[in-house]
Amino acid sequence: MVFPSMEDGDHEQVSYFTDPETGLQAIVAIHDTTLGPSLGGTRMLDYETEADALTDVLRLSRAMTYKAAAADLPLGGGKAVILGDPAELESEALFEAYGRAVDCLGGRYITSVDVNTGVEDMDVVARETDHVVGTSEGLGDPSPITAHGVFHGIRACVESVYGSDSVAGLDVVVQGLGKVGRSLAEELLARDASVTVSDVDEAAVESFAADHDVDVVDPDAVYDQPCDVFAPCAIGGVVNDETIPRLECDVVAGGANNVLAERRHAEALRERGIRYAPDYVINAGGLITVAKEHLGGGREEAYEEAEAIGDRLREMIERAEDRDTTVLAAAEEYAEERIDAAERVTPAVPTQ
Amino acid sequence: MVFPSMEDGDHEQVSYFTDPETGLQAIVAIHDTTLGPSLGGTRMLDYETEADALTDVLRLSRAMTYKAAAADLPLGGGKAVILGDPAELESEALFEAYGRAVDCLGGRYITSVDVNTGVEDMDVVARETDHVVGTSEGLGDPSPITAHGVFHGIRACVESVYGSDSVAGLDVVVQGLGKVGRSLAEELLARDASVTVSDVDEAAVESFAADHDVDVVDPDAVYDQPCDVFAPCAIGGVVNDETIPRLECDVVAGGANNVLAERRHAEALRERGIRYAPDYVINAGGLITVAKEHLGGGREEAYEEAEAIGDRLREMIERAEDRDTTVLAAAEEYAEERIDAAERVTPAVPTQ
Repeated sequence: MVFPSMEDGDHEQVSYFTDPETGLQAIVAIHDTTLGPSLGGTRMLDYETEADALTDVLRLSRAMTYKAAAADLPLGGGKAVILGDPAELESEALFEAYGRAVDCLGGRYITSVDVNTGVEDMDVVARETDHVVGTSEGLGDPSPITAHGVFHGIRACVESVYGSDSVAGLDVVVQGLGKVGRSLAEELLARDASVTVSDVDEAAVESFAADHDVDVVDPDAVYDQPCDVFAPCAIGGVVNDETIPRLECDVVAGGANNVLAERRHAEALRERGIRYAPDYVINAGGLITVAKEHLGGGREEAYEEAEAIGDRLREMIERAEDRDTTVLAAAEEYAEERIDAAERVTPAVPTQ
Repeated sequence: MVFPSMEDGDHEQVSYFTDPETGLQAIVAIHDTTLGPSLGGTRMLDYETEADALTDVLRLSRAMTYKAAAADLPLGGGKAVILGDPAELESEALFEAYGRAVDCLGGRYITSVDVNTGVEDMDVVARETDHVVGTSEGLGDPSPITAHGVFHGIRACVESVYGSDSVAGLDVVVQGLGKVGRSLAEELLARDASVTVSDVDEAAVESFAADHDVDVVDPDAVYDQPCDVFAPCAIGGVVNDETIPRLECDVVAGGANNVLAERRHAEALRERGIRYAPDYVINAGGLITVAKEHLGGGREEAYEEAEAIGDRLREMIERAEDRDTTVLAAAEEYAEERIDAAERVTPAVPTQ
């Protein structure tokens, strides 16, 4: 059943595409185009059932609406899933067929990379449609820009807790030394923060620690490490019933997606007096960067817009305090107000 | 489950649209756009389940591909269903929302009237999209053109049975005195056929018989009426296990949709030595007329193209005799050959 799930999440359009020659099965969910064409990546996964794929794409596309709205972007929320085992399915012909499918949506949906799809796949998609970003013609690796946004988000959180937005002398634990974690750690060090890093990949830790003045904490002990700011930049779900009582920090703010195991954990952090920066607000630098490919603009502007994440987060924190609620709830309210205030133009992309 | 049903019928795209304000729930199925944008009406029905609606729209859109291909039109097959009780749901706002949904498909689907939707609804749809035909701005009532095509189809059938395409002196039973049935009866009378009419609406029969030189047969006895040509122009399913043994004719060829209760009844008619003109081939005059709204052209040209239905049917009859099969099978083969021979252009309507 498609309609009940769509109506639950208030989705505009869900399209199913097949291509018998390549075995393509794709679902594109367009959640909301009030603010502009929907943008969101394409995930390729061997879902257990078609219903699982639908649930996932509906959830993810809705999240993109909030992410874009909370980042002040003129974009709506969409997402796509390609069903199947990437190892078996992935081919140029499949991504060409998928590109034609995206093109069928006439610009109401702009695709990009996501789990199991990469820049080279988007280059293939781009042969068939203009409605794709995250290609090799794009603005390059968004990770440093994401990290820059996270850095400014951390400053906003820190200011709300300590009264100053300087990170100098603060203890920050960076969990995960992927591209975003490394960039963030470097930006923090440059502003004289005291940085502790952690990663399950020991070699990555050793290599980073050799080149930078950082402390290292064991991945298992990362949640127990006393600090001012805990910056999760690795996997999702790290803030959960088990970890929340262990945290010895004043701020949780990092680049990872889906930091909270469940929505209620935002409230649990608040009850413990820990300031939490909603992940989709603080890590929007990546979206801002790929959006530039569509909207026009260079890396410099992307950096500037990522910096503005700090100001938006300040506004959301104020709202949360005014209304005695979580920053997560305030961020949602911020996004919904933007959408409600916009004059609805449907379809986002007129035919002509 | 959407994908298995799509793949069974080889459908390109199925899109679900909702509009919370008006309660719109619509499914648009685009079966095949190899020959051109898909065209097909919008049916409004209170389906028992969403799965029933999907099954219906998949079946109907596939049939439109064959109908357009067998009519030599540069169009593909599509169809739409709006779920719900027309009495409760029908409103201008709903059809406006539906028009925006159609527009979202960027011209890959062109809509028109169908069960429970009319010209006035399409006028509302046309406020929001150019991709609609069957409006009051169109070519007017297609019924006489449909009848004209049926008349020429009857001539082709008659020729294959009696060696001459003249209907003069032939006994023709016209079942149903709706707009197509009446026009057909008049065209037959003008060519000196001997016409017997039948309708469940006694007043319609009386009125028509008062003005025309026709015999009348009771609706219950229509299948037993000895004649040369039986022309069903009323409801579907009239050729079935119960009626086939009763038929005393050489040709079944009329304007009704879904004349056969089941596909196998084409073979059953053939076994009885009765020539059957596939309904979607012979009644394509209506599609030809609304297609003109999209493709450009006037009523005169629609009449000419409807006349060509006779030639196409002749070709299909020849094929059927060559291959020792039904005309229905030959018509499908004809349509499939057209599609296979066409250079596939996807999407049918490029973005620019």
